[in-house]
Amino acid sequence: MKIVALAGGVGGAKMAHGLAEHLSSKELTIIVNTGDDFEHLGLSISPDLDTVCYTLAGLANFETGWGRANETWNTISNLEKLGGPNWFRLGDQDIATHLERTRRLKEGQPLSRITKDFCKAWGIHHMILPMSDTPVRTMVNTDEGELAFQEYFVHRRCEPKVKGFRFDGIDSARPVVGAIDAIDKADAVVICPSNPWVSIDPILKVIKKISKPVIAISPIIGGKTVKGPAAKMYEELGIEPSALAVAEHYRHLLTGYVLDQVDSELQESVNRLHIKPFVTDTLMNHLTDRARLANDVLHFIGSL
Amino acid sequence: MKIVALAGGVGGAKMAHGLAEHLSSKELTIIVNTGDDFEHLGLSISPDLDTVCYTLAGLANFETGWGRANETWNTISNLEKLGGPNWFRLGDQDIATHLERTRRLKEGQPLSRITKDFCKAWGIHHMILPMSDTPVRTMVNTDEGELAFQEYFVHRRCEPKVKGFRFDGIDSARPVVGAIDAIDKADAVVICPSNPWVSIDPILKVIKKISKPVIAISPIIGGKTVKGPAAKMYEELGIEPSALAVAEHYRHLLTGYVLDQVDSELQESVNRLHIKPFVTDTLMNHLTDRARLANDVLHFIGSL
Repeated sequence: MKIVALAGGVGGAKMAHGLAEHLSSKELTIIVNTGDDFEHLGLSISPDLDTVCYTLAGLANFETGWGRANETWNTISNLEKLGGPNWFRLGDQDIATHLERTRRLKEGQPLSRITKDFCKAWGIHHMILPMSDTPVRTMVNTDEGELAFQEYFVHRRCEPKVKGFRFDGIDSARPVVGAIDAIDKADAVVICPSNPWVSIDPILKVIKKISKPVIAISPIIGGKTVKGPAAKMYEELGIEPSALAVAEHYRHLLTGYVLDQVDSELQESVNRLHIKPFVTDTLMNHLTDRARLANDVLHFIGSL
Repeated sequence: MKIVALAGGVGGAKMAHGLAEHLSSKELTIIVNTGDDFEHLGLSISPDLDTVCYTLAGLANFETGWGRANETWNTISNLEKLGGPNWFRLGDQDIATHLERTRRLKEGQPLSRITKDFCKAWGIHHMILPMSDTPVRTMVNTDEGELAFQEYFVHRRCEPKVKGFRFDGIDSARPVVGAIDAIDKADAVVICPSNPWVSIDPILKVIKKISKPVIAISPIIGGKTVKGPAAKMYEELGIEPSALAVAEHYRHLLTGYVLDQVDSELQESVNRLHIKPFVTDTLMNHLTDRARLANDVLHFIGSL
């Protein structure tokens, strides 16, 4: 079975990792959100791309879900002593990724090529594609004005109330080379349990059209997110956060929808959206949960 | 006694450190070469400035003379894995200095102000001034063509044969604010035992005129340099490397000249240049040697 997975950061990375345990490098392509990318301290940082790569390479910090395992923090702690900005926690190993990416981007190399080489260096066999080689920047419209995503997400800890989103550069951003082709050859597209507003929507807006079955895994379990501000965003946008709200968000796109057991009573409502529900345990606390959930999702897709 | 010291990297930093042990912050100003500065991996790096600052702050690596003590190398080792350029060894703590300097330079802040703030953060009480806030770049003319200084010095390990030097930007570079004033108020200017060609000449060319007694300490001992390519440069330029050759290099400038005991037979020749020689032990292997040599130099200056 050939699958294209659309992924944001932590949740998306875990799901992609699970799928990679079952699918060969020819069977799985992962398209990653780059709307969270930003420039900080002169470094070009791609948080979601790095989280997916580090996770698949087995280099990710299992506790935090982001950053590198066995990380050291000597640069940032010395930067702090100099009065430099310390709100974005950059580990010493992680900084190497940003320095080298920045160097190559400045040379005019496309992000996709750089990512491909990094994946090779990290021993990743599956194809990980940034959604576009053209910069797209997620801007969060809040009650304190428009904020760049990382400013909202990390610096302001999602405290300002969300009123909407804008994806700067989205109109001129073309899908990365290989993305459309991978979707054309795929049996299905899997939307990983990532934030619909800021992780998946940018990818969908760049990809534009998906003429294949699309299956999403709910990032909201029992009205809450495992990580990140998706539930908070729904609330602030006047929508009750729930697995159903996410299904409705993607309603024109989905063939199937994977809900957690705690949300099994929502199956009927999902059915009413003409989307086939599938209930399983969607929490990925342990490493083994990733492959188990991926297995469930692939079986569900096979049954559609 | 008020002293202005002109310094390059390792040897200059040791001498400046020795002087700082005897002179108060009002009595000593250190003007540092910035011709070695360069941009690498998007970072603005000032090797001599950092060596002097780290040394005075007690943060320097005593073994190497450059870089930070108790340094870690997690960024550069990860950069290597990604195939990034690793010829310039950047430690994790050191990278913080470059990131923050780069960030502030890009904001339009002058190097001198950044350096002043860094010195404060590092607990340095003496005034350390970059020779200029305008970039000057030392270019080495070699038998393999013209090379940027760090390309010659670090990447090529001083292997290409030197034919001459050019200081890009020197004509429009003005002395940093405070430098001329410090010299005007000084009793003497001390040329530290740094490379005359690439560490001191750029400073002298920026400062232009020194109407105060100038005393140099020979960086060449028994025909050899303690560290760095000064002796090799003399040879390749067709001049026999010796303490005398350095005195001749500075002949129109010097009132006094400090030689090592192994070069005591050169005193007569120095005298013949109308420069007063002073012989002492100029090697600074141990921390205590710095203050001892500085004490000797200050007494010599007092006697002139």
